[in-house]
Amino acid sequence: MEDYGRFLALLASALLVGFVSVILSFVWVFHYREGLSWDGSAGEFNWHPLLVVTGFVFIQGIAIIVYRLPWTWKCSKLLMKFIHAGLNTIAMILAIVAMVAAFEYHNAQNIPNMYSLHSWIGLTALIFYSLQLFFGFAVFLLPFAPVYLRALLMPIHVYSGLTIFATVIAAALMGITEKLLFSLRDPAYSSSPPEATFVNCLGLLLVVFGLLILWMASRPHWKRPLEESTKVLRPIGGTAEGTEVESTMTSSSNADKSDMRINTEAARKQNLKFDESGQRSTM
Amino acid sequence: MEDYGRFLALLASALLVGFVSVILSFVWVFHYREGLSWDGSAGEFNWHPLLVVTGFVFIQGIAIIVYRLPWTWKCSKLLMKFIHAGLNTIAMILAIVAMVAAFEYHNAQNIPNMYSLHSWIGLTALIFYSLQLFFGFAVFLLPFAPVYLRALLMPIHVYSGLTIFATVIAAALMGITEKLLFSLRDPAYSSSPPEATFVNCLGLLLVVFGLLILWMASRPHWKRPLEESTKVLRPIGGTAEGTEVESTMTSSSNADKSDMRINTEAARKQNLKFDESGQRSTM
Repeated sequence: MEDYGRFLALLASALLVGFVSVILSFVWVFHYREGLSWDGSAGEFNWHPLLVVTGFVFIQGIAIIVYRLPWTWKCSKLLMKFIHAGLNTIAMILAIVAMVAAFEYHNAQNIPNMYSLHSWIGLTALIFYSLQLFFGFAVFLLPFAPVYLRALLMPIHVYSGLTIFATVIAAALMGITEKLLFSLRDPAYSSSPPEATFVNCLGLLLVVFGLLILWMASRPHWKRPLEESTKVLRPIGGTAEGTEVESTMTSSSNADKSDMRINTEAARKQNLKFDESGQRSTM
Repeated sequence: MEDYGRFLALLASALLVGFVSVILSFVWVFHYREGLSWDGSAGEFNWHPLLVVTGFVFIQGIAIIVYRLPWTWKCSKLLMKFIHAGLNTIAMILAIVAMVAAFEYHNAQNIPNMYSLHSWIGLTALIFYSLQLFFGFAVFLLPFAPVYLRALLMPIHVYSGLTIFATVIAAALMGITEKLLFSLRDPAYSSSPPEATFVNCLGLLLVVFGLLILWMASRPHWKRPLEESTKVLRPIGGTAEGTEVESTMTSSSNADKSDMRINTEAARKQNLKFDESGQRSTM
């Protein structure tokens, strides 16, 4: 892997920032707030920020970059797809529980649901995240989709994944803003009590975590190399040529280092064409 | 241009959504709020959302995709750099005035400054935006930076630009959340009065505008082609080889359509290397 040291430093930074964010959300809930419960009280609401930070931000972020960990390149592509889908499924379940906690708390306290921009954007992100998981499973994990469909949908899958991730972080920042304005009364948010500064720092860490993940996920030279991805999940009826297309799709940026050799001008142009369709360079 | 119709449809959608967002922010300020003034009253604060939506979101978004408009490809690269930098400068000035309006309003009303996560992230985004503009000017517009430095910094410039843009939209959504919670008292935000629904829709439109701009800016096959970009701004001391590197940097995805022909394996590898450094495929 090119720039292996830099990748490791960024990965360590992302893990550290993400892990500290999870810790801070626990401290917020248990030290500054009412802890956890499931009885319609504020303790039930507190599952909401805790599970959003842990699942919808941290685990989703790890799921995004899991293909790029160089020590997984000896594992089969199919296994990595299961890990990618599995982590995203865990994140989705935690996000759904987080949403249910907020709804149940609102209902128990006679607070209206779905009036705020935070709720509109958060729920929209969760719906698109679920659709992304469903279509990703149907198209890229199940072996039925033809190669041209995978090639067509991959840039959309990558773009959707990264923008949903960014939107989730934006929704989390709006949620923090709401919660601090609601909860901090005496002293108010505007007088910057320790909890306000503490949770603002949590918000900044979520932004930094997002920036680190998006950088790692969008560097073409850190993509999983070609040779490992050709052996699995050949679509039903897939030809050798089709498999090559899929390989090009997932790993063209490593073409010059892999065993693949593009010997003809036509093949080079096809390679560039798939590059251009965003296979190499979606963020 | 490949997919010219689709590009035009997306551009028209982005312009429409962006333009409607600007209109909605005017309606918000003049119909639902106190209009505009510069006397420390709420009318002074209202410059803040108006100028952020108009300048920091809409004009910045246009500045991001200005290189991709196919009818500008006959213009010199230098002219397009001036337009890109000029639009970003206008956006920065409007964002600074927007920030000053918020500070002056706070000071006049004895409201503390810089306590909220919105203010932390918004000011950080503005500082990074100004640095981005300064370094972009120094490295890519002035003719002094050597080619290797441009090649090294271009992926960072593109990544920073797109993530600052996304962060500005996130900060705008947090600002909308704050403002609606502060302003809507009787009826409250939670009872969904018309203004609440109206401004929530503005927030959604800002997200849609951002998604459209980021999609257009991240499709490699919609990059400005090579042949127009080789004629200008050769760095002092730049060689023909250096110019070729810059061309590769800005337009390699169009290599198969341009007059440039990569005839040697070494040149092909260098091309891929520059691709991999993110020239082709940042975000």
